[in-house]
Amino acid sequence: MDSRAIGVFDSGLGGLTVVKQIIKALPSESIIYLGDTARVPYGTRDRDTITKFALELTKYLIKHDVKYLVVACNTISATCLEEIEELSPVPVIGVIKPAAKLAVETTKNKRVGVIGTRATVHSGAYTREMRKIKDSIEVFAEPCPLFVPIIEEGLMQHQIAEIAVAEYLLPYQDNDLDTMILGCTHYPMLRDLIQKKMGSSVKLIDSAKPTAQALKLDLKERGLLNSSDEQPVYKLYLTDTPLIAKSVINIFFEGDPPTEARKIEL
Amino acid sequence: MDSRAIGVFDSGLGGLTVVKQIIKALPSESIIYLGDTARVPYGTRDRDTITKFALELTKYLIKHDVKYLVVACNTISATCLEEIEELSPVPVIGVIKPAAKLAVETTKNKRVGVIGTRATVHSGAYTREMRKIKDSIEVFAEPCPLFVPIIEEGLMQHQIAEIAVAEYLLPYQDNDLDTMILGCTHYPMLRDLIQKKMGSSVKLIDSAKPTAQALKLDLKERGLLNSSDEQPVYKLYLTDTPLIAKSVINIFFEGDPPTEARKIEL
Repeated sequence: MDSRAIGVFDSGLGGLTVVKQIIKALPSESIIYLGDTARVPYGTRDRDTITKFALELTKYLIKHDVKYLVVACNTISATCLEEIEELSPVPVIGVIKPAAKLAVETTKNKRVGVIGTRATVHSGAYTREMRKIKDSIEVFAEPCPLFVPIIEEGLMQHQIAEIAVAEYLLPYQDNDLDTMILGCTHYPMLRDLIQKKMGSSVKLIDSAKPTAQALKLDLKERGLLNSSDEQPVYKLYLTDTPLIAKSVINIFFEGDPPTEARKIEL
Repeated sequence: MDSRAIGVFDSGLGGLTVVKQIIKALPSESIIYLGDTARVPYGTRDRDTITKFALELTKYLIKHDVKYLVVACNTISATCLEEIEELSPVPVIGVIKPAAKLAVETTKNKRVGVIGTRATVHSGAYTREMRKIKDSIEVFAEPCPLFVPIIEEGLMQHQIAEIAVAEYLLPYQDNDLDTMILGCTHYPMLRDLIQKKMGSSVKLIDSAKPTAQALKLDLKERGLLNSSDEQPVYKLYLTDTPLIAKSVINIFFEGDPPTEARKIEL
């Protein structure tokens, strides 16, 4: 039993989709969320820059005495999970492996699509993780760089979102997938449009739920679950305070807004 | 006469539109361009973050012994030009004042539109600068946050650009402007679409040319022009090296590619 908080970090606010599932799966656990909103997005940057920024976030959370680190960002998980694990004295989980595992379990025809940021797709991380489990999996991966800005601008219902989805999913027209990974924590916000475009026979997988489940299992196995009766505490630290953040944050925490939400310096 | 380089900086690559005009107006001058591609875009961030980042860029260029600083970014010029001037031992020019002056000289009905990032529009800098010259100017300012990502993705000819232009310029439908400031160094890349939407009677103003002209005049007045016969040197420093950068860079330097182009640490 361990009442310390779980540290969750992301390049911005997208990782809150993972927080939402962690709160559902582990309602007794306290959470510290760190979003690097001053430097978001990461998915268009190079490997060294992403690694440098991610290790700064890691150090910050470690100083805040967390018992576990959740890398709630596909770009960071795909780029430098090993470097984070090397630096961290506490266990680390990324979002790639749990989603890759679920995708392999889900696909029947072994044809899986992956959409994500440019950095995530170029890293080949999803392909590697799926082939580790089943080496005959065929993977079709495409970057969708405009999805994140469209979602951050709240234009999910706008015609622009529809056209962007049509454009980026065009390469998937004829390759007979039965499963597609939404390989960016923002993309579930476009789930309906993506589902419509891909057709109802394609199963969409996102990282949030399988990551929360894998985290729960590992906390249990390591004896790190919190069994105290105290109310969990949610803290939210951002490196910038855009006007838009408040409304986005409330979507994810629903009935349980963070007890502390503030801008910090890394 | 002073053969030191002119330092030009921007949050990313958009400031190269200003460099292009400086090369045209001042073909003997050497230029060091610094683009913070690791942390672009700035226009969605808060005032403190923008100021902090901009002062880091300023310090870097000052160390490189430049004779003049050009803030080739509307967001930075609108947010913290004074702080940069306080820090800098050499003269500083931003892009807001020269464009504002040209807009006031251009408008006949004194009704001017301004489009820019959220930070630029919220700062009110264009309105202030225009009213300093003529206090009866009416200003209609609207942020267009999706323009920068669309341009950085090279989608200027895509239907998405057309729809974004239609959406963001909708508020200008009935307000009888005769002049509009493209208040972001990226926006000239959407000039044709914006002109088509606004109608041919509306004059579009961008910062690049008037800033280069104002720079030329001030260099002359201060005796800082370079009169040596040596070939000018162009250096390009970026804080990140996205795959897309190379092709974008060549558009701006045309026949004169930078002699040095590399990633640097601030």
